[in-house]
Order: sequence, then C-alpha cells, then structure tokens
Amino acid sequence: MKPQLSIVKIGGNIIESPEELSEFLSLFAALPNPKVLVHGGGKRASQIESKLGLTPRLHQGRRITDNDSLDVVVMVYAGLLNKNVVAHLQALQCNAIGMSGADANSILSVKRPVKDIDYGWAGDVVEVNHRAIDKLLKADLVPVFCALTHDGKGQLLNTNADTIASELAIGLSSRYQVTLYYCFEKKGVLRNVDDENSVIRDIDEAAYLKLKAEGVIADGMLPKLDNCFHALYKDVSRVCIGDKEMLQKNASNYTTIQL
Amino acid sequence: MKPQLSIVKIGGNIIESPEELSEFLSLFAALPNPKVLVHGGGKRASQIESKLGLTPRLHQGRRITDNDSLDVVVMVYAGLLNKNVVAHLQALQCNAIGMSGADANSILSVKRPVKDIDYGWAGDVVEVNHRAIDKLLKADLVPVFCALTHDGKGQLLNTNADTIASELAIGLSSRYQVTLYYCFEKKGVLRNVDDENSVIRDIDEAAYLKLKAEGVIADGMLPKLDNCFHALYKDVSRVCIGDKEMLQKNASNYTTIQL
Repeated sequence: MKPQLSIVKIGGNIIESPEELSEFLSLFAALPNPKVLVHGGGKRASQIESKLGLTPRLHQGRRITDNDSLDVVVMVYAGLLNKNVVAHLQALQCNAIGMSGADANSILSVKRPVKDIDYGWAGDVVEVNHRAIDKLLKADLVPVFCALTHDGKGQLLNTNADTIASELAIGLSSRYQVTLYYCFEKKGVLRNVDDENSVIRDIDEAAYLKLKAEGVIADGMLPKLDNCFHALYKDVSRVCIGDKEMLQKNASNYTTIQL
Repeated sequence: MKPQLSIVKIGGNIIESPEELSEFLSLFAALPNPKVLVHGGGKRASQIESKLGLTPRLHQGRRITDNDSLDVVVMVYAGLLNKNVVAHLQALQCNAIGMSGADANSILSVKRPVKDIDYGWAGDVVEVNHRAIDKLLKADLVPVFCALTHDGKGQLLNTNADTIASELAIGLSSRYQVTLYYCFEKKGVLRNVDDENSVIRDIDEAAYLKLKAEGVIADGMLPKLDNCFHALYKDVSRVCIGDKEMLQKNASNYTTIQL
C-alpha cells in the first residue's frame, strides 16, 4: 500500500487576498505530511508589469511571456509570492521549501512550439523528477511550487500552475497514493453556476459524460475537468475541487472526482 | 576527520554582469560537492526600485528596507537573480536548489534593533539550521542562498550576503571542514590597492595585526577582514579572498586567511 500524499493547488483569488491566503495557509498547515503546495500569481504579475510601464499580454487567459514579462513572473512567482508563503508557513510550524521547476531539477519542460500564437517563454512540462521531490518529502519538507519550470539548458519557462499541479500528481503517483486538490473560490463543480449550494459531490467517468451531454459542465470548466481525468487516467487516486474549507477534517461539501 | 565543504560568496560585480556570472558559474560548477553558493544583488534591486518609481535609500552602503523596498529585494534576490542562477547551474549539471533563510527554516534572524538608524526590515542572523542544510547537502543538492532570512513569525528580512556566508560557514563547521571563499573583483587583499599584482598570499593573526598597524588594511577592508577572523575563531578552517580565478585547480594568486 503506497503512502498518501496531498497536492494542493491554489488559485489567484486566494493568493491575491492576504486574509484569504492566511486562512488557507492555516488549513494547509494542519493537513498531515507529506504534502505539496502549488500556486500561480498572474494577477499580481500583471500589476507589477503595469507599474514597470509594461503592458501584460494575454491570449485566452494565457500570458504571452516575452523577455520583460518573464523577468516579472520570475520576480513575482518565485520571489514575492513564493517566499512570503514559505515564511508564513514556517510561522505555522510547517517546514516549507520554495521551489521552481529549476530547483533540484524538479520539473523539466520545453518552450511551447509556435503554432497560431507565439506564447514566448511558456513551458510545456516534459518530466517530473519524482526522485528529487521525494527526497525533500522524505526529509519531512513541504515543497511549495510556483508556476515556473526550466528547459535544462538554462532557460526558465512560465508554466500554467494547474498543469504543474496535475503533472506533479501524476509524477508522484508511482510512489504515493495522491489526492490532488484544486482550491478556488467556489464550493465545487456546481450544477447551477448561480447556486453555491448546487455542488455535485461525486463525479465519475459516466457521470462526467452525462454532465457534458446535458451542458451542465461547459466553458471554462471543461478543460479543467478534462485535465482532472487526464490525471486520473495516469494513476492519480482522486481529484477534489472546492474552496479552502474542503481541506478541513470532516468537510464533505466539495466535488470529488474518481474513475 | 570531517568532510570538506566549500561556501562561495559572490559580490555584486559578478552577479550584475552576464559574462562574469557565466564564467564564474562554470568555475563554481566544476568545484567538487559538497558546496554552497551565496549571492546578493543590491545594485539590481536598486535599478528595479527606480523603475518602480521608488527611491533606494542606503546608509553607509547598507540598504534601509521599508515595506516597498523589502518587496523589491525579495523579488530580485529570491526571484530574478536566484532562479536564473539555479537554472544556469542546472544547465552545467550542477544540481542547485535556490534558498532563502525561510526555506527549510534554514536561517533565523531578528529584525535589527533601532539605534541611531532604523534599517527597517533588516535582519541580524540568530541561528543557522545546519541540520536542515546538511539534509540538502547529503541529498547531493547544491544550495544557492540569496540575501534573505526570516524571523520565524512570518516576516522576511533583508540580510547582508557577506554575513549570511560567514554565518553559514560557522554553522556548518560543526559537521564540515569549511573553506569560505569571498569572490569579488580584485585578486585578493592587496598590499597596494592600485597594484593588482600586490596580492598578500597568506594572512594569519599576527600578520593581520601588523598589516592593520601599518595601515595596509584600512577602510572597507577592515570590517571584511574582521568578519573573516570572526568566522575563523568560530571553527571555520580557512577563508579565501580573490577573484573568480581562485576557484580554479592549482590557483595560488589569492589571499588565504587562517589562524
């Protein structure tokens, strides 16, 4: 029986708000080890870009990362956000260690090939170095990953945080029974987007096909859930989607996705 | 017999110049493990501060770190500079892991007490967690420290990189025979500041007292060398001062300080 591992990804709304972040980190710190945190920080990066007189460029919500923009995301993700999260977790007796994919050669990626759109210094994950990450987990450390990887040739690459979380979950599933938590502002996958109380508690493959056919799951939720099933097909035990309350003991009002 | 450990601190002139940095990192990567790198980055931080419309404030070369200034040094030291160095070292097959003192709770400090000058969020080192750092070294990782520590209560603190290097050297001397390298733009401690060929190869305690009495060592070199002797009194094996060439095998034209 493999040991359990929790991988928690937090969205922009949590990391951008000091109060939300503080409440979330207390819940995260209380989770048993081993565990991993993954965060993005696109909004803060865009703010700093603007302050520096740069214009953030996005295509369908994804950042086009030119040279200046890469410098900013590296400063904001790996510096400002990551180190403050690490210091905060340390104050909660959670022995965090901040990571980009370059650190300990933990996540290797390739620059996204240019098709219709040139995303610049955007990285698509090629390999998760589960051996290196496992060494940190075995040392009772709590890796905190920001949304950066590297190409192994000296180049940092901006990489979607949802993808980093699912690739880490997949990569570590050879050693652990992994639960992947996507923590965002809603209570879970909702049957009615306007009703926070319409959380669909459990989704399996059959239910997912039905919900798609009914049009209940559509738009932005589709790629998110496709990504979840991709992780499940690759041996991740379960994926949970909900707000930070789902990390509490005895919580039940969130969505669990399992094959 | 304790195993050997090299701790190398690089100054601003190296980290600010891509060519110098690249040459230095090749030499550093070639050093045998275990080893640790420490860097600052004050000039780059001041540039980014200016770009953000902030005014860097320094007192006798030391930064006065207010809230905005702390955000910038965290972005620049732990983000921009640290992660690019780590990615560069990875490309050289050196398995680097970027660190602030908050990561793995590696360096604890206290906010500098206000006397004549309020240095703001400046930290004075209290404790080096040699156990945590040794776990990384034992995992064959190469820690790359930026000039930041934390107070254990969630606060990041800006900390002089020379001090971080000497405190790391002292803290790790219980487990290792430590050589501390201060790598800067000159070939070593010079008998005549205008003559690069006047390197004083060896300095012991008696020689130091003599050089001070003669006025050969004065001004900025005084606190630097006092800091070196402080490390030596606390069991660091030797301190070397010179330019990056001192890291080469068979190099001899640099200053070695030993009790």
